[in-house]
Amino acid sequence: MGSNAYPLSINQVTMRDRWSLRQAVEGCARHGVRGIATWRDKLQECGIQEGARIIADHGLTVTGHLRAGMFPAATPEGRRKAIDDNKRAIDEAAAIKAQCLVLLGGGIPEGSKDLAGTRRMFVDGLGEVLPYARAAGVKMAIEPLHPMYAADRNCINLLSQANDICDELGEGVGITYDVYHLWWDPNLKAETERAGKVPGRIVAFHVCDWLVPTKDFLTDRGMMGDGVIDIPLIRSWVEETGYDGFCEVEILSSRWWAEDPDKVIETCIERCRTVC
Amino acid sequence: MGSNAYPLSINQVTMRDRWSLRQAVEGCARHGVRGIATWRDKLQECGIQEGARIIADHGLTVTGHLRAGMFPAATPEGRRKAIDDNKRAIDEAAAIKAQCLVLLGGGIPEGSKDLAGTRRMFVDGLGEVLPYARAAGVKMAIEPLHPMYAADRNCINLLSQANDICDELGEGVGITYDVYHLWWDPNLKAETERAGKVPGRIVAFHVCDWLVPTKDFLTDRGMMGDGVIDIPLIRSWVEETGYDGFCEVEILSSRWWAEDPDKVIETCIERCRTVC
Repeated sequence: MGSNAYPLSINQVTMRDRWSLRQAVEGCARHGVRGIATWRDKLQECGIQEGARIIADHGLTVTGHLRAGMFPAATPEGRRKAIDDNKRAIDEAAAIKAQCLVLLGGGIPEGSKDLAGTRRMFVDGLGEVLPYARAAGVKMAIEPLHPMYAADRNCINLLSQANDICDELGEGVGITYDVYHLWWDPNLKAETERAGKVPGRIVAFHVCDWLVPTKDFLTDRGMMGDGVIDIPLIRSWVEETGYDGFCEVEILSSRWWAEDPDKVIETCIERCRTVC
Repeated sequence: MGSNAYPLSINQVTMRDRWSLRQAVEGCARHGVRGIATWRDKLQECGIQEGARIIADHGLTVTGHLRAGMFPAATPEGRRKAIDDNKRAIDEAAAIKAQCLVLLGGGIPEGSKDLAGTRRMFVDGLGEVLPYARAAGVKMAIEPLHPMYAADRNCINLLSQANDICDELGEGVGITYDVYHLWWDPNLKAETERAGKVPGRIVAFHVCDWLVPTKDFLTDRGMMGDGVIDIPLIRSWVEETGYDGFCEVEILSSRWWAEDPDKVIETCIERCRTVC
């Protein structure tokens, strides 16, 4: 197992909050990692133009900028604020030449139980900002998250939903494909093939692992190889679609956040070579 | 909202470990609850014939006996033990005239990452015990559990999977339909309609609620009305299939386990009337 030929990218959240953007860029470069995914707060803290310069100086590809979307809101004012915030995120993604802006669906608005309506709000919001993203040359990449986040974080929970939305909205919308969120889906192979019919629809490929037991809903994701996900199998499905981008490691983990970030990156490199 | 005309059943786990089977039966009867779902350890502790007698004496319907299935195993010996254990569970369910034996899929065997193979093992195991269940007149009711349990508890995670297995194995197999596990699925309405095309396929209807935030993977389920599930909407889909059984309350919750069980039952009755 493990013959991952994709170039490696490290999502900045993997070292959170140990490193600033500058430290993360320098750390990736120091270890020969050629890609990074950036987070909005870290970029803003650094300054957008300064961040863009640091990234360019080190020759890194930004495999994704996180995160936007989250259009559902309880009020028209809330929806308007989400639209405006997405436009700012698009500007940031353009400034750092990110391969995509990663979109979460957002949760059910406070006081509501209307999950279908929440999902519709996401699609409507994305449709509204899409011309702005197209004009900026920024790909909007929907990331379906595990169904355990459907209520409060992301109402888009299946690859089939992301495919449906891409079909509906057309050019400029793609998918962030994360094995952690999708691995359990019995329709995953078929929906991956479906995504593959549109060249470029899969914009990013994320890896980490599902631990047994998992002790926290958000911060107990595993290093590749420490859990039960058959990453090489899923990667082979993604490869068959023609995806030829980066393999991005994104691990939200209090266990790995407590480690020396250089050691974390070394472990990511070794695991990507051996078990992904 | 809330015009639930289904008779109420209480799943014994809702009062766990406060009450024995006898106490749970007497408690349900005392509050006018006409159904109960029983757990194997509690029945065995009471004695199977004695348990059957207590239930019959109080005129309660057993809406489900929990739990069996869990056929996937790392070794042929493990698979054989699961088959034997399922036969004992079928005997118990028959003795207490349970409307169904509730089946979990089981998790991925230790050392394996083969989720598809795990799912196949479940179907093969169920196929092997099915003649025994048919002969005993016990309906085998697959309960899809939320995808967050796919690794270690139940590899059957979508209503579509349960429908597929029912289609494949035919007579004697049905579905335990639990809103907690299924509510987030964008295909739920369509798959409920599909289930409804086979009369009697939906054998049991379970309710509780999804809390925001949910703090524990297993023991933080909510009382109906305290979470985000639109239970009346989902119940309306189940009603449209012609399901005319009980509405079974099953709440695994350290919060409710700490309460007086009589108060818990009173709350279940009130919530089923007002928000289910």
